[in-house]
Amino acid sequence: MSGNTFGTIFRVTTFGESHGPGLGGVVDGCPAGIELDEAIIQKALDRRKPGQGYGATARKEDDKVALLSGVFEGRTTGTSIGFYVANTDQRSKDYSKIKDIYRTGHGDYSDDAQDGIRDYRGGGRSSGRETVSRVAAGAIAEQVLARDAIRVQACTVELGGIPAKDVIWDRLDERPFFAADPNVVEPWKERIDTVRKQGDTLGGIVEVRASGVPAGLGEPVFDKLDARLAQAVMSVGAVKGVSIGSGFEAARLLGSENNDSLTSDGFLSNNAGGILAGISSGQDIVVRAAIKPIPSISRQQRTVDQSGREQTITIGGRHDICAIPRVVPVLKAMVALTLTDMLLVHRAKA
Amino acid sequence: MSGNTFGTIFRVTTFGESHGPGLGGVVDGCPAGIELDEAIIQKALDRRKPGQGYGATARKEDDKVALLSGVFEGRTTGTSIGFYVANTDQRSKDYSKIKDIYRTGHGDYSDDAQDGIRDYRGGGRSSGRETVSRVAAGAIAEQVLARDAIRVQACTVELGGIPAKDVIWDRLDERPFFAADPNVVEPWKERIDTVRKQGDTLGGIVEVRASGVPAGLGEPVFDKLDARLAQAVMSVGAVKGVSIGSGFEAARLLGSENNDSLTSDGFLSNNAGGILAGISSGQDIVVRAAIKPIPSISRQQRTVDQSGREQTITIGGRHDICAIPRVVPVLKAMVALTLTDMLLVHRAKA
Amino acid sequence: MSGNTFGTIFRVTTFGESHGPGLGGVVDGCPAGIELDEAIIQKALDRRKPGQGYGATARKEDDKVALLSGVFEGRTTGTSIGFYVANTDQRSKDYSKIKDIYRTGHGDYSDDAQDGIRDYRGGGRSSGRETVSRVAAGAIAEQVLARDAIRVQACTVELGGIPAKDVIWDRLDERPFFAADPNVVEPWKERIDTVRKQGDTLGGIVEVRASGVPAGLGEPVFDKLDARLAQAVMSVGAVKGVSIGSGFEAARLLGSENNDSLTSDGFLSNNAGGILAGISSGQDIVVRAAIKPIPSISRQQRTVDQSGREQTITIGGRHDICAIPRVVPVLKAMVALTLTDMLLVHRAKA
Amino acid sequence: MSGNTFGTIFRVTTFGESHGPGLGGVVDGCPAGIELDEAIIQKALDRRKPGQGYGATARKEDDKVALLSGVFEGRTTGTSIGFYVANTDQRSKDYSKIKDIYRTGHGDYSDDAQDGIRDYRGGGRSSGRETVSRVAAGAIAEQVLARDAIRVQACTVELGGIPAKDVIWDRLDERPFFAADPNVVEPWKERIDTVRKQGDTLGGIVEVRASGVPAGLGEPVFDKLDARLAQAVMSVGAVKGVSIGSGFEAARLLGSENNDSLTSDGFLSNNAGGILAGISSGQDIVVRAAIKPIPSISRQQRTVDQSGREQTITIGGRHDICAIPRVVPVLKAMVALTLTDMLLVHRAKA
Repeated sequence: MSGNTFGTIFRVTTFGESHGPGLGGVVDGCPAGIELDEAIIQKALDRRKPGQGYGATARKEDDKVALLSGVFEGRTTGTSIGFYVANTDQRSKDYSKIKDIYRTGHGDYSDDAQDGIRDYRGGGRSSGRETVSRVAAGAIAEQVLARDAIRVQACTVELGGIPAKDVIWDRLDERPFFAADPNVVEPWKERIDTVRKQGDTLGGIVEVRASGVPAGLGEPVFDKLDARLAQAVMSVGAVKGVSIGSGFEAARLLGSENNDSLTSDGFLSNNAGGILAGISSGQDIVVRAAIKPIPSISRQQRTVDQSGREQTITIGGRHDICAIPRVVPVLKAMVALTLTDMLLVHRAKA
Repeated sequence: MSGNTFGTIFRVTTFGESHGPGLGGVVDGCPAGIELDEAIIQKALDRRKPGQGYGATARKEDDKVALLSGVFEGRTTGTSIGFYVANTDQRSKDYSKIKDIYRTGHGDYSDDAQDGIRDYRGGGRSSGRETVSRVAAGAIAEQVLARDAIRVQACTVELGGIPAKDVIWDRLDERPFFAADPNVVEPWKERIDTVRKQGDTLGGIVEVRASGVPAGLGEPVFDKLDARLAQAVMSVGAVKGVSIGSGFEAARLLGSENNDSLTSDGFLSNNAGGILAGISSGQDIVVRAAIKPIPSISRQQRTVDQSGREQTITIGGRHDICAIPRVVPVLKAMVALTLTDMLLVHRAKA
Repeated sequence: MSGNTFGTIFRVTTFGESHGPGLGGVVDGCPAGIELDEAIIQKALDRRKPGQGYGATARKEDDKVALLSGVFEGRTTGTSIGFYVANTDQRSKDYSKIKDIYRTGHGDYSDDAQDGIRDYRGGGRSSGRETVSRVAAGAIAEQVLARDAIRVQACTVELGGIPAKDVIWDRLDERPFFAADPNVVEPWKERIDTVRKQGDTLGGIVEVRASGVPAGLGEPVFDKLDARLAQAVMSVGAVKGVSIGSGFEAARLLGSENNDSLTSDGFLSNNAGGILAGISSGQDIVVRAAIKPIPSISRQQRTVDQSGREQTITIGGRHDICAIPRVVPVLKAMVALTLTDMLLVHRAKA
Repeated sequence: MSGNTFGTIFRVTTFGESHGPGLGGVVDGCPAGIELDEAIIQKALDRRKPGQGYGATARKEDDKVALLSGVFEGRTTGTSIGFYVANTDQRSKDYSKIKDIYRTGHGDYSDDAQDGIRDYRGGGRSSGRETVSRVAAGAIAEQVLARDAIRVQACTVELGGIPAKDVIWDRLDERPFFAADPNVVEPWKERIDTVRKQGDTLGGIVEVRASGVPAGLGEPVFDKLDARLAQAVMSVGAVKGVSIGSGFEAARLLGSENNDSLTSDGFLSNNAGGILAGISSGQDIVVRAAIKPIPSISRQQRTVDQSGREQTITIGGRHDICAIPRVVPVLKAMVALTLTDMLLVHRAKA
């Protein structure tokens, strides 16, 4: 397996498993002179920490980041930035019972098929913990974007089939689930409580929005801005769908309905999600991701073991009911990484 | 702009505009010994030709492909494969009236924002004609996949808001729109007739399915198989959403519903769309793409010109009502290109 | 085989064999607005044409280039630039006798070892004709460099063991061999005449010099400017050594001799060849390449055939005594391509 | 600055400065199942440690490596391998006097020109300490090569203008300077003693040899095996020239002298250095690198400060007389990294 690098000019390369010594990565291609210190990255990591969402795992990780290079006197020097987060609470023994069994809905089966070698301790590289490195790198990207007044935000717009009615960015971080609408929090909590009692899990939909993105980012063929965003977002575990602007709804609209009329005051709507023919239009970039329910459920499921014998599996342990609170900061990070890279690539060709 | 290369080991690089001399590309990294000639590529190009879908443009292109290198005595030699398709019916004068006006819903505005230089003759590199090169390269990829008995197919599963009830792969090419279900063809034709009279356009949803894909393709982090497919599919013009397996529906299912139970006979369902934790599971790969309605409509729309002055625009000319019949072979090609690349990358690490 | 793409932002991808329909390539990432037409590329191709050097092959190729995309009204549009040169004089029959024999000193043996498939008609992709695409792409690169007043030149500084005493750039193109010094032309001609009579061949040393390169290009670790130049230059067939500035001589100098003292008027010498710690210093970039003698000689040599049986081989045909006159424009092109890419990469991180 | 990644399939990305917390990197694309532990990497690091060569710096670094991921139960899992080496002896104060002065022959001037930001503490990313990461990654590569019985070795063949008469690989590690010939050690020590008294420094030539490399590695155009090796070798600080096989000498030989005759017993000579037309022939790969003398000398030199004012500089501190003993293991590592990558790339296209 490889594929641990993302980006062309602004590139992040990551490493680390849930049950090894720790996780980290290298951000390469970051411009010199960007304000950066550990506190900025730490703040982003704290937003994705386990144990703080409703219906979330009790696993506790400090997730303290160490900056290992690339920063001098509080600013980036333009060299590669190494960072590291030690694992402190891995408890490998939790997983020993399922060493030979493929957990239903997990990557155990496909991972094993790849090369016959699998780190059975909690998913290895496919674990959700891998996203620690994405969030750390995303925090660095956001510092670069901030220099150009570009801002990326993410919220939950649907959970367990219950959509938010509104998207209110103000005071988002104070709300459980990074809920788009304060009024939807209680219904979502109730839904989670019900599902937890059933030993089941839930999915949802996350929206990421980037404002201040200049018109002109993206390349017209394979590296369309939306294509790169789609890869970035779909590369996050549990994501099964990605859409831009009106997304799948666009397939049901007439041309006259879906087109965004352009006036001297700008566009009158944003069905395009800020991207026309693969290139940013200056409107807000709007991306949505469909998150599947967590496959680890405490209800009994059918599966097989490594010898192909049928087994049943019931997963207890410290698992979330809903991945949403953990995925929101990760998707925000991936969009920030993509935009930063495309911004620098665009600059190359000025 | 750049971004005209796709792939890591099996790589395609394309060029060409709708109103220049022609289009073509280079396929690099193709294994030696693969059966290939112009007729194989021609057959694929003929499937995407303008003028054969219902509600399609009257523009006629011969789209005769020439193989320029990389093939000797009917087989690939392992060197880069150049190919070329001359433009024969461009009629630049059709576009002269809209030289300074940004067509509503098109990339004219964003393209111009990028570097202030725009080939106003039919969208330049953003034109649908760019996909000729994708289809030609995809045909080469399919020859590589065939060696491993991997087969890629694509059909239309929804058009103008009317979904197909069934997906029947048999005799697909004989049906208009590459319709998933023969019974939906008439309703779709009626829908198109109605919308044409209104001077409007329609979108739809395309499904691509790959069978015979071995378990183990894909990398667990940024180059997940679904992530690479998402980029590939979203890089096609007019696509506004991509989903794998149960897709956005997964966000509304319980874990127990969405998980695919595994038995000694294999999986009992395929909500995963053949991909678990970014790696193929051996089941069919199932990808869907949402296609927006064509932005060129004959109803009057609001826009601005290059000076920012408000204008109205009514697009006559030779434009399709629905992009679907043209997009289906292109999406098939993009999935074939992605799978071929991932297959070869996988082999590297054996 | 792959590896037919060079560059990160300004990228060239090439195709074509000596005995196929033709050769060409795609230049991607070229900034918009650069003056470009076929005449500019043609002029560069004419400098590398066979048949004009002393001691050169009689093969005649028109090498007429066609620009297929990326240029509109005499300027680049920022989209990928396709170009093509048809083969007009391949005479495959010349090679039929040696179909099964590995030519001594050629790539026939190693090429066959790679995948068991070999286009025996004149070296296939390893033929010197492959460089047509490099020179065409290099001409485009030089147009980009000219915008920043960067100029690349190349000359022959040694041939058949006879070094030029001086390097005089003025009127270089009028001198046979692109000889560095007019006084060395006659001795070189005599050396060639002697060696031709012996049925043998000669090598030499080429110097490429780039002036006007701003300080700051190159990356401090793997993508040092000299490292990228080394790849570029060594990728040209027949090159067996690359050096920067004082090169191998530096290994014999004292630190005090090799260091270039820096004063308020600039550097007092240029042993560094314009590159310090992998980054351009603003001085002239000076690269040298050692060219081996052409392996095709008319004297009898020992070799084996595809079955491993011993054979002798005597190569008549249309072959040069010395590759130098053909290699000089190619090395110039490779340095121009490298500098253009590094210039654009540098810009990305501003 | 970026360029901190090397390789296509087997890729190493590095970070770290001489005066920051430490250095490290990520190896991606390593096949699963390769035997690996910290002791294997440590052994390679110990070979490049400062303080052990004759005429070497007194700086002492423990250089203890920590493996952070990608290894489970003593074998690689196929996921990315993170590693880290903490700095323990940086003494920043040594450098404070020269904060504003460009050291003659160093990258200070060009580095500052790049983006106006420079970590003046010992060269930052251009410091020789950066090579710790290369050697650690190279040790991993050598484990992959060992699986295919490929072995890479490196020795010093010339120092201070005194060439070794012979190349004897046996017991190489026991000899100072990794000297090619035991008889040359004393003359080299005398040369170093003389030059040290003069306050000056020396360079030399290193040979890297890889045996067991199968025929068929390398790509015929831009990614020729020798081209990739040239980049790899030239990317090491202080290298000013790279040659393959007969190298610059090839420029002075006749074709009949330079060609390696092929018999049923194999090649009769190896002027090609194991590479024909960019592809390995199965013979030993032979690469040489010219190392310039260390620019930090204790004799007074002319330079300027950041304001452009003329200054003189005399560098005391802990610096080597000759970089050779440190560079030999680094060049070995770079060749191992290149061959591993090309081996895996080759496998992709089987």
